[in-house]
Amino acid sequence: MKQLQDRIRREGRVLPGNIVKVDGFLNHRVDTALLGQIADEFARVFDTENITLVLTAEASGIALATVCAEKYGVPMIFAKKAKSDNIEGGLYQSEIFSYTYKKKVTLLVAQEWLKPEDKVLIIDDFMAKGYAVHGLIDIVEKAGAQLMGIGIAVEKGFQHGGDDLREKGYNIHSLAIIDKAEPGHIVFRGEEE
Amino acid sequence: MKQLQDRIRREGRVLPGNIVKVDGFLNHRVDTALLGQIADEFARVFDTENITLVLTAEASGIALATVCAEKYGVPMIFAKKAKSDNIEGGLYQSEIFSYTYKKKVTLLVAQEWLKPEDKVLIIDDFMAKGYAVHGLIDIVEKAGAQLMGIGIAVEKGFQHGGDDLREKGYNIHSLAIIDKAEPGHIVFRGEEE
Repeated sequence: MKQLQDRIRREGRVLPGNIVKVDGFLNHRVDTALLGQIADEFARVFDTENITLVLTAEASGIALATVCAEKYGVPMIFAKKAKSDNIEGGLYQSEIFSYTYKKKVTLLVAQEWLKPEDKVLIIDDFMAKGYAVHGLIDIVEKAGAQLMGIGIAVEKGFQHGGDDLREKGYNIHSLAIIDKAEPGHIVFRGEEE
Repeated sequence: MKQLQDRIRREGRVLPGNIVKVDGFLNHRVDTALLGQIADEFARVFDTENITLVLTAEASGIALATVCAEKYGVPMIFAKKAKSDNIEGGLYQSEIFSYTYKKKVTLLVAQEWLKPEDKVLIIDDFMAKGYAVHGLIDIVEKAGAQLMGIGIAVEKGFQHGGDDLREKGYNIHSLAIIDKAEPGHIVFRGEEE
């Protein structure tokens, strides 16, 4: 998606450790108009007329998933991380390694809100190793629901989380796959170097 | 706001410890159409044409703040909790007590994205003691920005966080103030018991 790639190239910053910061428009200060364009792009790729809900993981996926769910006319569920006192029993759980926090966290979705008859589109703003998405897939499978697709805004291709899912046959679509990230030099998949 | 109060009465559940669960439509499974109605209601109360950004705290405030920011045509910033490796220096910080997690957490906003010339509308889905909102106000003041108002969807009136802010003169508006919550019996402010 050209608008997104342009924004990453113009406003993204590459930090040591291959960290690509897009916190000026995607995951701290959020450009809601851009999120709307991303949601429209996913609607061209996925069968959004036949989904029953959008699923994401807290925290930074919530903004994009909300805009998508609003456009497609379905509810949005965000998997909570760890256990807070406000969630009682009846939970689908999946333990994942958080690349952001460098520790294990548990994704939780109340069984009450995710049913076998649901048709789920997983949405996330960012994918590196794909741990969070694997956890969300695990939860969809535990619920016996149908996974309709996985939409990612920015994928760090050089960390291979997306390729792993594509090899396994999942219907995953990323709008900007970064294959190389060095200060001042970002290469997207499909581009000449 | 009648639609919101009706939903709370119909679908909310009161748990021991005065916990009011609205996780079927507001803060786990999110009804994005309802969020749109809430955003419209805030636009009737606040001068949303003259704000430059919407500020909230992760995680559950993000969905509502996103829909509000999208409607008002401004960016949304969510304060992050604790410190992740993806945030480097240059942060406004405010330490708060999290009622949900029963421990202290630090709210963080990058100084780069919140400027003295900003006119800020704080939005949150839920207020009990008001710790998170106090932290957000603290951050707005540290940035030297102008606080235009505080919009809350559901306030637990019996925990007095909102009354405290009203007494201090803040321009706060809550769309459903719960003054009494017992299983099967919810009283909103302004209603006869």
